[in-house]
Amino acid sequence: MSSESSEIQSRIDFVLELDRLKSVERQSLLIDGSRRENSAEHSWYLAVLALTFISYVDEPVNLDHVIRLVLIHDIVEIDAGDAFCYDQAAQVGKLEREQAAAQRIFGLLPPEQGDLCNKLWDEFESGETPEARFANALDRLAPFLQNANNGGLSWKPHKVTRSQVLDRIAPIKDSSRALWDFAVQQLDEAVARGEVVGE
Amino acid sequence: MSSESSEIQSRIDFVLELDRLKSVERQSLLIDGSRRENSAEHSWYLAVLALTFISYVDEPVNLDHVIRLVLIHDIVEIDAGDAFCYDQAAQVGKLEREQAAAQRIFGLLPPEQGDLCNKLWDEFESGETPEARFANALDRLAPFLQNANNGGLSWKPHKVTRSQVLDRIAPIKDSSRALWDFAVQQLDEAVARGEVVGE
Repeated sequence: MSSESSEIQSRIDFVLELDRLKSVERQSLLIDGSRRENSAEHSWYLAVLALTFISYVDEPVNLDHVIRLVLIHDIVEIDAGDAFCYDQAAQVGKLEREQAAAQRIFGLLPPEQGDLCNKLWDEFESGETPEARFANALDRLAPFLQNANNGGLSWKPHKVTRSQVLDRIAPIKDSSRALWDFAVQQLDEAVARGEVVGE
Repeated sequence: MSSESSEIQSRIDFVLELDRLKSVERQSLLIDGSRRENSAEHSWYLAVLALTFISYVDEPVNLDHVIRLVLIHDIVEIDAGDAFCYDQAAQVGKLEREQAAAQRIFGLLPPEQGDLCNKLWDEFESGETPEARFANALDRLAPFLQNANNGGLSWKPHKVTRSQVLDRIAPIKDSSRALWDFAVQQLDEAVARGEVVGE
């Protein structure tokens, strides 16, 4: 195999692997309640939320970089799975599993491109740049909006409380005061509807 | 409602509507053959393919613009549905249905932002910029790769021929000679395996 066709093949191997993210199930349900969403469509959703809400971010951010962060942020779940945020046991060893996944999956790419993906994933996880803060805010805003508009389908069965949700969506506050104010108002309405425990 | 909260609300209405793209079913199946894919996860897949294959494009392209094009290219299907490419009847009136959909869905946004989405969608559909050519190439490459790696699940039942597939993936040639050569080689292997009719 020539060097060029071997470089194409390694990228093809990578994208064939990525197809499996469409089968990683998340806890959150679609707004119509018909099924749980998967991590691939969730990643698309975050990218269009980034495009839609960019003007509400409280600090200068590079929108295109935010989009790259959200596009790759869940790829490690192909190996590591999605850990439900309110399940403490599922959090044990999560970072190690995800790091091994990053090494294997991004390692399918030619080294330079694999390193770029690894850096994007690290940046998202660290949450220390304005772009990563916005990406993390969106990652909390999206399932919040879904729950707030499907009757609290991921909240009610777990008797999730208002303070648990506030903890969960706190990253929104670090990126956008306007989106945070909107979310808190929506949360109080969900409490009033009995979808979230008011404590 | 203040002008600011009404602007947020219109964007929220837009993204709540976008959640429905996760329920628009396409003809192509996942590589593991377990189910058909939906247009939301397909859009994510094109975006990560853009990131992965950018170095194979034959003309200068702005990668971030390509990503925006693929993120929004299928949103009109929320109203208009996905028309199977080998079904001639489904193509009748497709453009009109999609234009009405664009007007309604992008019309949920504040006008300036709605216009931006409309322009991105028009650009993708026209396929006349280098970015739109690459985006259209990816839109053909992705289901091709899925079929070529799942035993031809969308090809075999429809007795799809080699020349039909070549017509379908022709946009790849307009953007990337290397990806085109790769795809033709893969197609010939699918013919040899009896997954595509060799004519």
